[in-house]
Amino acid sequence: MAQIDSLERLINEFSKLPSVGKKTAQRYAYFLLTMKDEDVKDFADAMVSAKENIHYCKVCANFTDKDICDVCSRPNKEPVICVVKEPKDVTALEKVKDFKGSYHVLHGVINPLEGKGPNDINIRSLLDRVRNEHIQEVIVATNPDVEGEATAMYIANLLKPLGVKVSRLAQGMAMGSELEYTDSITLSKALSSRREM
Amino acid sequence: MAQIDSLERLINEFSKLPSVGKKTAQRYAYFLLTMKDEDVKDFADAMVSAKENIHYCKVCANFTDKDICDVCSRPNKEPVICVVKEPKDVTALEKVKDFKGSYHVLHGVINPLEGKGPNDINIRSLLDRVRNEHIQEVIVATNPDVEGEATAMYIANLLKPLGVKVSRLAQGMAMGSELEYTDSITLSKALSSRREM
Repeated sequence: MAQIDSLERLINEFSKLPSVGKKTAQRYAYFLLTMKDEDVKDFADAMVSAKENIHYCKVCANFTDKDICDVCSRPNKEPVICVVKEPKDVTALEKVKDFKGSYHVLHGVINPLEGKGPNDINIRSLLDRVRNEHIQEVIVATNPDVEGEATAMYIANLLKPLGVKVSRLAQGMAMGSELEYTDSITLSKALSSRREM
Repeated sequence: MAQIDSLERLINEFSKLPSVGKKTAQRYAYFLLTMKDEDVKDFADAMVSAKENIHYCKVCANFTDKDICDVCSRPNKEPVICVVKEPKDVTALEKVKDFKGSYHVLHGVINPLEGKGPNDINIRSLLDRVRNEHIQEVIVATNPDVEGEATAMYIANLLKPLGVKVSRLAQGMAMGSELEYTDSITLSKALSSRREM
């Protein structure tokens, strides 16, 4: 086809999104061209301002637009920290409404094949938090896959000398499944029957 | 989850894209937050500038960033117009490289159930083009579904009095398809328009 530079550029940008191929990117781009001018500007502005306003919470490293995120600033939190791989895992767990503690986002898991060691994820500040916040239990809610289990193991070994209880979400989640796509009832069950490591 | 306004807004914008639900929109938004600041700005800018620069070609109504699109400005075009439903159909046909004429984009098809009549799509200018550009053949390449067939019928009836040849893309089995899995309507068409070897 006769190439239109700005259209090609837009398709190229859309195809950077996860799991978006050339065909889907083209579909999004064509759709965008049918939107109203001001709606496209709003969309673009939402992207830039989200990127500008959102950063990591100083305590738990979840996304927030404040210094300390809403979960961390909650009053009367239970002295329990739930450790997760990614911010979207917090979203999934918050939907359950069973958990009254705070979170700790690792932003990854230990994965030697990808050259990711313990220092490449957000583990160090977890130790300080356990000490300073008088935490009684740490629930390691990384995904039940090889890397997630290994990371949980590593964290458990690190924390146990501090005298804190370390637990893991109960079996009930299928091996190889992902926290993000687990339904709330299963997640709730997994939370309530978490096992000590 | 504790709501972050600018994140919610971004997720909401992404979920306007075709076939993008809440979950996918969230995935796109989280991905965007992991991109570099300048890459997000480039993305946003690509959206706004595509929308600003791209409009309909004055002749064929395909998307273009010029007054008249590259296909319409080609020298030595054959006097044949291929009528399609949408701009992406032009992209598909241009990939074949067999067609040396020009296109005419309807931006829709006649669909009484959706209240879309002949005046709601780009048909009128097609008549002028057939007259002024001394067109010898119009290939109506709308999709082979109910609305596409009805639209093709309507266009054929409109054009025939002008003495122009009106044709339709052949229907039959797709290359590489299997007889076992071909639907009966397609098989019926393939049978009735069988060709001698």
